[in-house]
Amino acid sequence: WKIELRIMDKHHIVTCTAPVNIAVIKYWGKRNEDLILPINSSLSVTLHQDQLKTTTTVATSKSFEQDQIWLNGKEEDITHPRLQACLREIQRLARKRRKDGSSGLDSAGLPHKVHICSVNNFPTAAGLASSAAGFACLVFSLARVYGVEGELSAIARQGSGSACRSMYGGFVQWIMGQKSDGKDSIAQQVAPETHWPELRILVLVASAERKPIGSTSGMQTSVETSCLLKHRADVVVPGRMEEMIQAVRNKDFPVFAELTMKDSNQFHATCLDTYPPIFYLNSVSQMVINLVHRYNSFYKETRAAYSFDAGPNAVIFTLAQHIPELVGVIQHFISFFPPESNGEDFFKIVLCYYYLLQVGPGPCFVEDSTQHLLSSDGLPLKTA
Amino acid sequence: WKIELRIMDKHHIVTCTAPVNIAVIKYWGKRNEDLILPINSSLSVTLHQDQLKTTTTVATSKSFEQDQIWLNGKEEDITHPRLQACLREIQRLARKRRKDGSSGLDSAGLPHKVHICSVNNFPTAAGLASSAAGFACLVFSLARVYGVEGELSAIARQGSGSACRSMYGGFVQWIMGQKSDGKDSIAQQVAPETHWPELRILVLVASAERKPIGSTSGMQTSVETSCLLKHRADVVVPGRMEEMIQAVRNKDFPVFAELTMKDSNQFHATCLDTYPPIFYLNSVSQMVINLVHRYNSFYKETRAAYSFDAGPNAVIFTLAQHIPELVGVIQHFISFFPPESNGEDFFKIVLCYYYLLQVGPGPCFVEDSTQHLLSSDGLPLKTA
Repeated sequence: WKIELRIMDKHHIVTCTAPVNIAVIKYWGKRNEDLILPINSSLSVTLHQDQLKTTTTVATSKSFEQDQIWLNGKEEDITHPRLQACLREIQRLARKRRKDGSSGLDSAGLPHKVHICSVNNFPTAAGLASSAAGFACLVFSLARVYGVEGELSAIARQGSGSACRSMYGGFVQWIMGQKSDGKDSIAQQVAPETHWPELRILVLVASAERKPIGSTSGMQTSVETSCLLKHRADVVVPGRMEEMIQAVRNKDFPVFAELTMKDSNQFHATCLDTYPPIFYLNSVSQMVINLVHRYNSFYKETRAAYSFDAGPNAVIFTLAQHIPELVGVIQHFISFFPPESNGEDFFKIVLCYYYLLQVGPGPCFVEDSTQHLLSSDGLPLKTA
Repeated sequence: WKIELRIMDKHHIVTCTAPVNIAVIKYWGKRNEDLILPINSSLSVTLHQDQLKTTTTVATSKSFEQDQIWLNGKEEDITHPRLQACLREIQRLARKRRKDGSSGLDSAGLPHKVHICSVNNFPTAAGLASSAAGFACLVFSLARVYGVEGELSAIARQGSGSACRSMYGGFVQWIMGQKSDGKDSIAQQVAPETHWPELRILVLVASAERKPIGSTSGMQTSVETSCLLKHRADVVVPGRMEEMIQAVRNKDFPVFAELTMKDSNQFHATCLDTYPPIFYLNSVSQMVINLVHRYNSFYKETRAAYSFDAGPNAVIFTLAQHIPELVGVIQHFISFFPPESNGEDFFKIVLCYYYLLQVGPGPCFVEDSTQHLLSSDGLPLKTA
């Protein structure tokens, strides 16, 4: 019976990894809070997992007494509604598959409790949209453990909106969809990770003491109060999505870069038009923005683009050939960045380090069973 | 002949003062650069001249060999196109009046050269929209010296857009107008300066080393590049103008205050949506904004409102009864303001001092001939 147990284990413990993505056409505002349906489509670049990734192990076992989750070494509340939404949806698909007779051994874990263990290989405090990689990895791993295949981005979306884009590699659009049940609000790959090998992404990580306002409540207030956000979503973004998809397909860096910068700025403009206003850009962000514009002006060519999300990190896009110079220019100016201490109302920000990244693939199944984050008794390993 | 000369002098030297105004529905963007016709209407509060004003003396004399102008003690270029536009328009009206026979001695100075001397009683570096008060005062003084009466705001507008609003006291709207010649793009008083005696305006003056980008070129770039600015001008502002006029007429501070803050934020949002983006708000501005929102939240009542123009000063509106506490709160937080030194790309800002002001009247004629800024030989007095 020892051999049988091993086979069971093999099928009922799965480890996967998933990537971080950076939106170049931004998502800001939901039309449905529960299903996480956005007011506009968005487009992102999936970052390579060699430096930034989430790893998740999911195990099911007859011997587990309750569902449990550990995130970055700490047990968290498994009853969190968004976590439950993902779990429920994957299990529903698994039951459907079993009923349809299209699943074999894989769905055997269904009646059992589940243990989930997830870690990021980068500090959560770095503010690198870890929830997107986290929920993408969770959904991908759960699907694997329950033997579910097919379109999974609509499930990841219910964990965290932008997580649906982390379900694919390369350049990914999240189509907003029209249906009220959200079935058509899914991610699609625009171009694979091999499409534009020269593209480089420089993530300048700032240590943020705290985020002034979280993106969930921030975008809710924006939807309720910003006159400009609705216009952006209804009128501006549809055209930009088309232009951006073309720019990606043509590998047209100047167009890609200019749209990226304009869309980042417009997102922050709608934050400022929110009442009370939301500020994510600070004096360091302003400095990075000015630096990029001056760099491009100097060469009379758009060689670099910035993008800022609802946090302090600056993301710079450029082509491989400009990296040595651009990194030099940034490092020169980083030495000028003063530590800010504006009283308790402001988070302190100092640029700490940067990642130099390429475009990368979507979630991956980890073959090597020594990489599991859960031990054979279903508890987190020390390394997790 | 000595007596005759004195009479001539009396009629051909005029001194006037004009006020600064603060827009609560902002003007940003021209549809005609030469005539200074705006893309939206705006509304402002005229500040009392007891603390902030421009004083201008205009003299005409047969003995003057050329037109000359001195601003704040320094001779400036009289051929400046906007200055010439004002001079030309007033002289055209004067000739028209003389032709119609409706003018007597007053227009006698018409064939002569003109000397203009103008001073502000506040530092130009304070960034207090001195061009609005300056051009309003110029046009008002020229009209007086040439015996021109009637609607003059459309002429002041051609000197500096917002100058048309400084031609009236109290609460003033600048109606954008429809005509291509700009004849209907004029200022009108919404309510006189006596209408809302409890209203107070606190101007927090920041010493700016330099403005990152001037408003003339800034608004031009915004009109060319911001998708959101056009929507603001066409769709948002018309409704806000109506609401603001009602709020002023009803002396409804919470509505007045909320619209003021929203409109200031939306103006800065369109600056951020400009490409390349324009930043007028910095970390000190963000602090003032947060402070006002927290102050209002604490009392669960909108007791104060902020407004920021294309410069570093914060303008706070409140009612007289809240002034002692609000000044105390601000002074408490001013002590936390650090002097910023972000390298050469950023202007340094430290709050220096504040003005506590009331709503005030429009341009005034100065009866007292000892207040002239030009001597009997037409040159600036030492005090000017």
